[in-house]
Amino acid sequence: MKHKLALIGFGTVGQGLCEILINKKSELKENHDFDWEVVAVSDLLKGSVYCPDGLDVNQLLDLVKSDRSLEEYECKSKKAPCEFGWDAVTTIHDSNADIVCELSYTDVKTGEPALTHCKTAFENGKHVVTSNKGPAALKHKELKKLAEKYGVQFFIEGTVMSGTPVLNLARGPLAGCSISAVRGILNGTTNYILTEMEAGKSYEDVLKTAQKLGYAEADPTGDVEGYDAMAKVIILANVVMGADISAESVDCEGITGITPEMINEAKQNNARWKLIGSVEKSNGKITARVKPEMIPSDHPLAGVMGATNALTFSTDLLGDVTIVGAGAGRTETGFSILTDILSINKFQKGI
Amino acid sequence: MKHKLALIGFGTVGQGLCEILINKKSELKENHDFDWEVVAVSDLLKGSVYCPDGLDVNQLLDLVKSDRSLEEYECKSKKAPCEFGWDAVTTIHDSNADIVCELSYTDVKTGEPALTHCKTAFENGKHVVTSNKGPAALKHKELKKLAEKYGVQFFIEGTVMSGTPVLNLARGPLAGCSISAVRGILNGTTNYILTEMEAGKSYEDVLKTAQKLGYAEADPTGDVEGYDAMAKVIILANVVMGADISAESVDCEGITGITPEMINEAKQNNARWKLIGSVEKSNGKITARVKPEMIPSDHPLAGVMGATNALTFSTDLLGDVTIVGAGAGRTETGFSILTDILSINKFQKGI
Repeated sequence: MKHKLALIGFGTVGQGLCEILINKKSELKENHDFDWEVVAVSDLLKGSVYCPDGLDVNQLLDLVKSDRSLEEYECKSKKAPCEFGWDAVTTIHDSNADIVCELSYTDVKTGEPALTHCKTAFENGKHVVTSNKGPAALKHKELKKLAEKYGVQFFIEGTVMSGTPVLNLARGPLAGCSISAVRGILNGTTNYILTEMEAGKSYEDVLKTAQKLGYAEADPTGDVEGYDAMAKVIILANVVMGADISAESVDCEGITGITPEMINEAKQNNARWKLIGSVEKSNGKITARVKPEMIPSDHPLAGVMGATNALTFSTDLLGDVTIVGAGAGRTETGFSILTDILSINKFQKGI
Repeated sequence: MKHKLALIGFGTVGQGLCEILINKKSELKENHDFDWEVVAVSDLLKGSVYCPDGLDVNQLLDLVKSDRSLEEYECKSKKAPCEFGWDAVTTIHDSNADIVCELSYTDVKTGEPALTHCKTAFENGKHVVTSNKGPAALKHKELKKLAEKYGVQFFIEGTVMSGTPVLNLARGPLAGCSISAVRGILNGTTNYILTEMEAGKSYEDVLKTAQKLGYAEADPTGDVEGYDAMAKVIILANVVMGADISAESVDCEGITGITPEMINEAKQNNARWKLIGSVEKSNGKITARVKPEMIPSDHPLAGVMGATNALTFSTDLLGDVTIVGAGAGRTETGFSILTDILSINKFQKGI
């Protein structure tokens, strides 16, 4: 059976996913008994195309690379002509996809339009995989229940540390352990800024470079004030530790208060400033926060430099387990979508 | 269905496993649909007992804690009287266990007696889970084939970094990535010695303390000459990277040549000596080695201190992914056996 994928959003993550799917087609078939076709792509800016017989993914990639609309796609099916111009909800509702890859833009305040996309998919018996933090940070419990009701899956590995396995690590290889705390560097932009400030550069200069490199947005508030890390902390609290918290209950402070003097003082004390997101369970109560912390240089999180992310799980049976890896990136986040699709494939086939 | 476990060997790992199984009985049933009984324990020094109805594990633990023989076990079954004095092979062959936990002593030269235990189990349709490096380092491919032939599983998570997920991470959440290299700190004893030498102590003094603390054996050769790390490197090469190498092809050097002068020189260069085990694939050829290396202090492996272990996977889709955690310990290695048993349970139930 070929999985039929609908891509809602065709930015870097969707394109990254398609590149991986093409490059690894035979490997995925051989090693993971996984076969696929992309039947629909719907993007607010790039246009929309659907073919129940499957689309030529190379043609899709070529179109967006040359800044042309997806609606210029040349249909190759003789059995079923392509449909153009379907919006996201129509695509999810009316296409024959069995897996919806929700890759639209992130809004961590309302969760929309991704929230509606997820619900529509579930109500139509379709699985959802997403790297969008909005629905996961705002309504994970509700969405998980809805997915269960309709007998489908809702996987979100890419919402924290892109494809570096964090949620899958907790759900899979750490199963059997109780996790009493998670603590980590969850935002690459701020870690890059702190790393460069340690090398003697000023906050303002580093921010400018980060913006030039594409690490930081034109409006860097989401990163430097800790809001991006906060959304991830909420996801970790609710998904990994079974809490039910929202933004109001997270104590959140960014890195804008860190001065060169503070950086130097830390250095003299054999330590480093890091923006740490943490969730702790104590006496049955779960608290979450985002805050700059001085980390001793012999701590596993202290060696995590640049745009790299890291997360430490405190467990009852293994003590601390730390995973370090990419927190963003075209291929890395593309992989996060693939890993969730492979989980669905594995689950369905009982392999 | 209750899984029936036979424990071959009842040292710290077996006892650690039993403690976890008792403490987590209801949690494992509820969260993982896993139920168990221990039907047999066979230990060369502590004696042997088998009851097809299941043994009282608390009584077994009490017996060994008070240095009494397992053959003093008081049978509680009215249906089936206990059998005493069965050796390992008889226990594997004649008991009604469906999972054999191979926890006998490690011999990385011959692999025996564990090798015979594994083969006997497979030929009698029984799964094997083990933390014993012998069979895994010497005959992984052959054993995996034999297990497949008889439709059973052979899981060995505990052979590298105890229960810290390394093999399960590669097999599960990293599936879909190609791994081109692994590189890590795989021996806690030598990492502890290097950490303490950095604090100004001499090799001889630290070794004595390590022996007192139980980190190092009376004959420390296996650790300090790198042989323990070498066995793990062979397992990683063969299991994670699909090689088929043996000890002869591994370039192996321990830490006995590291002097206080070298440690100081590294410090002055913002670096640290670490005993690194590595496997690399280049032009289709896989090479493996164990060697002390000077690691820059901003590298993820540099912050790994004391008896902690760490491993970096170099992948095509995620770049470097590093996992840091315990490399030994009663509960940690006990968990490695549990995690493999849970994998079997999950696989059988398609969950």
